[in-house]
Amino acid sequence: MTLNTRPLILISNDDGVDAKGINSLIESLRLLGDLFIVAPDGGRSGLSCAVTSKIPIRAMLIKEEKGLTIYSCSGTPVDCVKLALGNLLPRKPDLIVSGINHGNNASVNIHYSGTMGIAIEGALNNIPSIGFSLCTHKPDADFSQAVSYSALITKHILEKGLPKGICLNVNIPYGTEVKGIKVCRQAAGNWSEEFEERTDPHNGRYYWLTGVMMNMEPDCTETDEYAIGEGYVSVVPSKIDLTAYEYMEDLKYLEI
Amino acid sequence: MTLNTRPLILISNDDGVDAKGINSLIESLRLLGDLFIVAPDGGRSGLSCAVTSKIPIRAMLIKEEKGLTIYSCSGTPVDCVKLALGNLLPRKPDLIVSGINHGNNASVNIHYSGTMGIAIEGALNNIPSIGFSLCTHKPDADFSQAVSYSALITKHILEKGLPKGICLNVNIPYGTEVKGIKVCRQAAGNWSEEFEERTDPHNGRYYWLTGVMMNMEPDCTETDEYAIGEGYVSVVPSKIDLTAYEYMEDLKYLEI
Repeated sequence: MTLNTRPLILISNDDGVDAKGINSLIESLRLLGDLFIVAPDGGRSGLSCAVTSKIPIRAMLIKEEKGLTIYSCSGTPVDCVKLALGNLLPRKPDLIVSGINHGNNASVNIHYSGTMGIAIEGALNNIPSIGFSLCTHKPDADFSQAVSYSALITKHILEKGLPKGICLNVNIPYGTEVKGIKVCRQAAGNWSEEFEERTDPHNGRYYWLTGVMMNMEPDCTETDEYAIGEGYVSVVPSKIDLTAYEYMEDLKYLEI
Repeated sequence: MTLNTRPLILISNDDGVDAKGINSLIESLRLLGDLFIVAPDGGRSGLSCAVTSKIPIRAMLIKEEKGLTIYSCSGTPVDCVKLALGNLLPRKPDLIVSGINHGNNASVNIHYSGTMGIAIEGALNNIPSIGFSLCTHKPDADFSQAVSYSALITKHILEKGLPKGICLNVNIPYGTEVKGIKVCRQAAGNWSEEFEERTDPHNGRYYWLTGVMMNMEPDCTETDEYAIGEGYVSVVPSKIDLTAYEYMEDLKYLEI
């Protein structure tokens, strides 16, 4: 492979440009290509595919060396991708990698996740895209196993690509020896008891987001949550076309 | 129908509790059930399924009369739904209605839309949910046709329900006599030229989100964008399970 054909990989995340997860990933992916990072200038968890339209955003060049460019950005994770693709990158990247997120994004968490917002934005732009997440919120989490599996999967997808409109949601178990990789479907899940009510010193009521994620099909062996629970890295191919084709015919009664 | 069995409908939006779209909708849906509104205290466009986790949120009771309760909320559209379901509503609602959004949410806009974030959150909680959007950004837009079709579709879904995990993305054309309703699939689309670069008085560079939405399959008659262009209300049944089942087998090469 000559210098000119080295793949160009765009990397972002939702934990911010200084997070351990993205920096571990950067180190391990340098072997695979030229890296271009545009990541939020602080934590932006739970921002889904949100974009910033009412205020302008800014980007700051942090590092520029051979094969590695790093920008921080004041916007959302998806803003980072859009700004990279439209304004900052020298050319369309060969791959977009997001993470490694500090926390599980399996099951329905794909809807809330900024990490997966990045991968979905990549797929919307017809670029193979992968979101990696480590299933722990432990502050001093060890990302080493996650990095090895992320690099391995990234290498495969760089070679093989992904079909149009599909990105990967990859979750890596924590606190266990990883047994391998499983291709899974998204588990049906639900968050419960989501807001905790408190009273401020001025007697005003306020609410903190909290809650517990419930796997609604714990015995089903086909899901990402099951694979993670068994010590496997889960890989869910995820679509940007949300159409429920199987229900279109039944819904025709609405047509007038 | 006795008073005790009147349906309970949760209404929210992403344009804010004072927006014309939501207030037009409230007026027309009062005939169909008891309405409970929890809507953002200002505009929250483009927030997708974002949730607020780093700061607490607040809610304010604005109106409480027979069959109509209105709260404003400092959070995102999805925060409004979660707070309503977990803390504010007297019981699980029979239906969640979002909008009427001031602007098109067809095609891939479903991923960025706070209006559709609300409907997706409803489906995640196993409640039939519909997002309504009017395809114009005209500041003084006339919502009357949109209101008629929204009320009609709401009435149908109240009666028939929706399958688990499916919500509706409904878009109403503007500036034309609406010809009818079509059940469609999500058009493949793409936003281009998304950030406009400017320089501030201190010579700092900043970027405004802008861009143009491109329909990538303008000749296909099956899509929501096509139906809207032809003067029809588009209804896309949309799934919360993003798994690309058709690609799982091909991806098995990743398994180790």
